[in-house]
Amino acid sequence: MNETIALMKRHRSIRKYADQPVSEEHIRQAVRAGQAASTSAAIQACCLIRITDEARRRRLAELAGNQTKVARSGAFFIVCGDTRRHRLIAAREGKPYKTRLEGFLLAVIDASLFAQNLVLAFESLGYGICYIGALRNNLPEVDRLLGLPEGVFPLFGLCVGVPAEEPLQRPRLPLEAVLLEEQYPADEEVLGLVDAYDATYRAYLEQRGAEPEAWSAAMAGMFDRPRRGDIGGYYREKGADLS
Amino acid sequence: MNETIALMKRHRSIRKYADQPVSEEHIRQAVRAGQAASTSAAIQACCLIRITDEARRRRLAELAGNQTKVARSGAFFIVCGDTRRHRLIAAREGKPYKTRLEGFLLAVIDASLFAQNLVLAFESLGYGICYIGALRNNLPEVDRLLGLPEGVFPLFGLCVGVPAEEPLQRPRLPLEAVLLEEQYPADEEVLGLVDAYDATYRAYLEQRGAEPEAWSAAMAGMFDRPRRGDIGGYYREKGADLS
Repeated sequence: MNETIALMKRHRSIRKYADQPVSEEHIRQAVRAGQAASTSAAIQACCLIRITDEARRRRLAELAGNQTKVARSGAFFIVCGDTRRHRLIAAREGKPYKTRLEGFLLAVIDASLFAQNLVLAFESLGYGICYIGALRNNLPEVDRLLGLPEGVFPLFGLCVGVPAEEPLQRPRLPLEAVLLEEQYPADEEVLGLVDAYDATYRAYLEQRGAEPEAWSAAMAGMFDRPRRGDIGGYYREKGADLS
Repeated sequence: MNETIALMKRHRSIRKYADQPVSEEHIRQAVRAGQAASTSAAIQACCLIRITDEARRRRLAELAGNQTKVARSGAFFIVCGDTRRHRLIAAREGKPYKTRLEGFLLAVIDASLFAQNLVLAFESLGYGICYIGALRNNLPEVDRLLGLPEGVFPLFGLCVGVPAEEPLQRPRLPLEAVLLEEQYPADEEVLGLVDAYDATYRAYLEQRGAEPEAWSAAMAGMFDRPRRGDIGGYYREKGADLS
């Protein structure tokens, strides 16, 4: 196994960080590596906002469901979809700026490919990371705090820092559930793989000293009602066309 | 610079491939590396469909705007958002399956983080790759060809193979346009960075022997009307709630 694949397979999200900063040089290296990821037709529809102000980080930690790591990791970033540049260019050239869902999707994919390179670059430099999806718990408040202009919208947060824990790795679905040949399998086959995974998942939770719950039970409890409120309304307000 | 960062910085999309397959063992290694990426609350809302049937690959190549590489790369995959497992689990447990835009967004982010790990794993093994966003040109036709069930929807294609070209690297926006401190910069500052990048981008196209066009001109021509039609309508039909 080569070093890059080994690095990916060592990944686990880090939720406790040492009280040490992330070096400026490392941040620049990681962002350059992030930028090297593919981007649809070079549109590069994303940006990264580093938050250093301590009061702001504490407020963001609250908004993300009281996750103290948001305030305490070596560095904290917000990954945004960024269609601002294209809008400013269109306005300057007297052209319309029009997309439908495709424009939003391009920004989300660009931002995610960028972020995953960024994350692996940080991990390759010895840092740990944690994506903060809970930043979407209250997007209008996050937006007010940052004063973002039209066309720039947070997708997720990112904690980076020197790890102060070595958590167990959470197991993944069986390979056969994810790598499919030619077509999507029948329902019984999918549920059979879910059952096999449930056992693995329960064993992992037990080993971690947590309440052993099947993965499928966790999932059934996660999608029984909409979460995170009207995030579509927020994105539309920032100019995203979700139609 | 460590090997992982060096690998990322060597990335360029490969559009011509040698007539050589991608080894089964490498595919399995790369998918495992893909699965190791972060996934929000372990939902793992994505899957990868490998298309080997030649007639199907030729049809997909046509549907993606006549991109022959889709039929001719060593391997061709379709990266899908996959909410099928969660739906089947909910049905089995007699619970509702309900999300709003958050559910779709989770799937797109999960699939993209997975795909970027997958891509880097393939690149680390000596292959070249090209994301095929144009698979979204005609999603209903792609869907009919694959016979996908409710809750599974293609996001992009992926060509993988032994490179048969060494293209120039397309330059990226200046670091300062992407790595922001505390807040989003003023419009004039953004446009100043765009102007600097326009010159770099034009020089790159010239060097490649292409018509030298400023990046901003390319972007203004890309967003002056919606592209790829009613992709939102397709995703909604597959069960995605975009509200």
